[in-house]
Amino acid sequence: MAVREEMLELAKAAQRASRQMAILSSGVKNELLLKMAAALETAEADLRQQNEKDLQAARDRGMAAAMLDRLTLTPERIKAMADGLREVAALPDPVGEITGMWLRPNGIQVGRQRIPLGVIGIIYESRPNVTADAAGLCLKSGNAVVLRGGSEAIHSNMAIGSILQQVMEEMSLPRAALQVVTTSDRNAVTELLKLEEQIDLIIPRGGEGLIRFVAENSRIPVIKHYKGVCHTYVDAAADLQMAEEICLNAKVQRPGVCNAMETLLIHQDVAERFLPQIVAAMRKAGVELRGCEKARQIVADLVPATAEDWHAEYLELILAVRVVESYEKAKEHIETYGSLHTEVIVTDSYPCSQRFLREINSSVVMVNASSRFSDGNQLGLGAEIGISTSKLHSFGPMGLEDLTTRKFIVLGHGQVRH
Amino acid sequence: MAVREEMLELAKAAQRASRQMAILSSGVKNELLLKMAAALETAEADLRQQNEKDLQAARDRGMAAAMLDRLTLTPERIKAMADGLREVAALPDPVGEITGMWLRPNGIQVGRQRIPLGVIGIIYESRPNVTADAAGLCLKSGNAVVLRGGSEAIHSNMAIGSILQQVMEEMSLPRAALQVVTTSDRNAVTELLKLEEQIDLIIPRGGEGLIRFVAENSRIPVIKHYKGVCHTYVDAAADLQMAEEICLNAKVQRPGVCNAMETLLIHQDVAERFLPQIVAAMRKAGVELRGCEKARQIVADLVPATAEDWHAEYLELILAVRVVESYEKAKEHIETYGSLHTEVIVTDSYPCSQRFLREINSSVVMVNASSRFSDGNQLGLGAEIGISTSKLHSFGPMGLEDLTTRKFIVLGHGQVRH
Repeated sequence: MAVREEMLELAKAAQRASRQMAILSSGVKNELLLKMAAALETAEADLRQQNEKDLQAARDRGMAAAMLDRLTLTPERIKAMADGLREVAALPDPVGEITGMWLRPNGIQVGRQRIPLGVIGIIYESRPNVTADAAGLCLKSGNAVVLRGGSEAIHSNMAIGSILQQVMEEMSLPRAALQVVTTSDRNAVTELLKLEEQIDLIIPRGGEGLIRFVAENSRIPVIKHYKGVCHTYVDAAADLQMAEEICLNAKVQRPGVCNAMETLLIHQDVAERFLPQIVAAMRKAGVELRGCEKARQIVADLVPATAEDWHAEYLELILAVRVVESYEKAKEHIETYGSLHTEVIVTDSYPCSQRFLREINSSVVMVNASSRFSDGNQLGLGAEIGISTSKLHSFGPMGLEDLTTRKFIVLGHGQVRH
Repeated sequence: MAVREEMLELAKAAQRASRQMAILSSGVKNELLLKMAAALETAEADLRQQNEKDLQAARDRGMAAAMLDRLTLTPERIKAMADGLREVAALPDPVGEITGMWLRPNGIQVGRQRIPLGVIGIIYESRPNVTADAAGLCLKSGNAVVLRGGSEAIHSNMAIGSILQQVMEEMSLPRAALQVVTTSDRNAVTELLKLEEQIDLIIPRGGEGLIRFVAENSRIPVIKHYKGVCHTYVDAAADLQMAEEICLNAKVQRPGVCNAMETLLIHQDVAERFLPQIVAAMRKAGVELRGCEKARQIVADLVPATAEDWHAEYLELILAVRVVESYEKAKEHIETYGSLHTEVIVTDSYPCSQRFLREINSSVVMVNASSRFSDGNQLGLGAEIGISTSKLHSFGPMGLEDLTTRKFIVLGHGQVRH
């Protein structure tokens, strides 16, 4: 069967299954996730054996050690996958929630009720744990899911998928609600991305290359973020000790992730005091600093920052620093170079904090806290399926609720329109 | 200037202006809309003069009478445009609303707050009143708007746009927040649809051809509905008098719109009683009925329905009728042929009503009311910018709130991540 027909059949089966999933009770869905968690743990030996096939192939191709590590399923990581499913089972079910209900003058009652999106496609790279994590979130929110991982993890992904599918069958739930695309045909993704009648949402997880490819080739809505150029603005009224702790945490606690700080903006009124202090602290932590002209007048041995630095998502121990004349200049910098991900102000000024919260429309805006909190778990969504830096549907870290939409329900007793 | 650069400049200016619009108070936005309403009424003579240019050109091209009528700006229609703006001014402002706020164990407070989408592009045909209506909704929700109407209404649209822009200037608001694309270059739309960095949402309003063109050529998210194949299911437990009134209203009160009923499903247990009754009533109202085999066994002179009839959005006085064996068969029919727009059940059975509400995931699901209520005004959204039958972002009739998104706000006092 050609890959086009194969993907169409698969997506149609997913759509049919999604209608069954949509009306499952929370109790059944939670039971499903808990049984899946147990099944993954029980199958540890088999999972590691299948994973070893991927690892061997990767070693033969000369894959770098860091990539090999990401591909590896250790007993701890299998346990973590299972625990992830248990955590999702424990979360409140968004499906069925009525977010408002009102009476119209003619007596009809109108409400908006959360329903699953339908079929969600996840396109991802390397880490096989995404197979279980994404499946758990999609199923808990009443959706069917089509998973397409990278070829480097194909045996691991197939093994995880088949364990999870077996649990679905044991519970007499439709197997097609959870499908792993296993074909080696590289056109499978391109074909999936055309099926706008069957698939409701695509979430790519991986590097910028994968995300751009998906966004450019999809006729289905895609939720994505390309990069996180997160700013911390240290205001004239900042508590400088607090500012140091927040900046240090935002840059060095885990520099390789999208919510790490990439650019530090300092109000000129505190730059003479704060800049030497933060430079010393950052350097002690191994951070290279690149400064604007004004910053270099205060700390002469900073690397000169170029225009490229203001756009950079370093994802490593490098920090761009700019001294700004005013709040307005900080805002202008964020609007010009920001990626709409996360911005932080450090200030003790009530009006400045309020202005920042009101005027900065990135997906997460913080006062006096580290940008590292910008993730679904830390913000209290319970889990994270992805982060959106485009404003449609969801903006920012996405949890279970973001895998639903709302329908209108209308309760009448014979009303007609005049 | 080439049209590509022209559109890019226009969209960049809109984006800059959108940041100013995003932080206006409701008071200022309401004042703006009220002044715009007054300005349109004051300019009646000028508007009609410009509209006459479009009408003359249309007559010269031999435009059909119905189309000419839609293009015409009468004093009543100018008054209606102004009143529309006044109604939007009177609506609550969705911007700034905090839809939830919670405390995390580490003491940070996390909330979600409504913000405008940014820049909204409206691509529409014929009726010049869309220029004022769409502008009002976009500006009230704090967005900038780029309007591209059809060439047949170019003088009318330019005149309306220029009156509204003048009010913006009088209030020292950015002109670029409301722009009418006036170039005669047919590539203007295609170029606009590429500007995903500047424009956040595209809403096409017009025929299926326009909507498909926009959806297929846009790199920006598009909110759309292609058609409304609305079903009414008369259950075995229906009050047949109520069913007759609801069906009649849904089909004949205004047959040319997307929320009119196109297919009637009747449970076989009541078909022998209800079908002759509704056929008589519909025929009296001038409706042609096309029936399935079972329906024709009851009323022999029905036109035989073909597979095409189940997919048809007639938008005229034709109705497809099918007798179904069960609720399940009605559901299956709706899932197979429906367009996710609006479905109605008529029943006095509590379990059947609940099942229909729970299991049918079209954008509007009704019990015992006419499908003609499926519109933003009737459902109480205050106004309608469009209807979405795709599930992402919004599903169903869209009001002011659907022109916003939500950002996360985080209030800390020095928290860092461990």
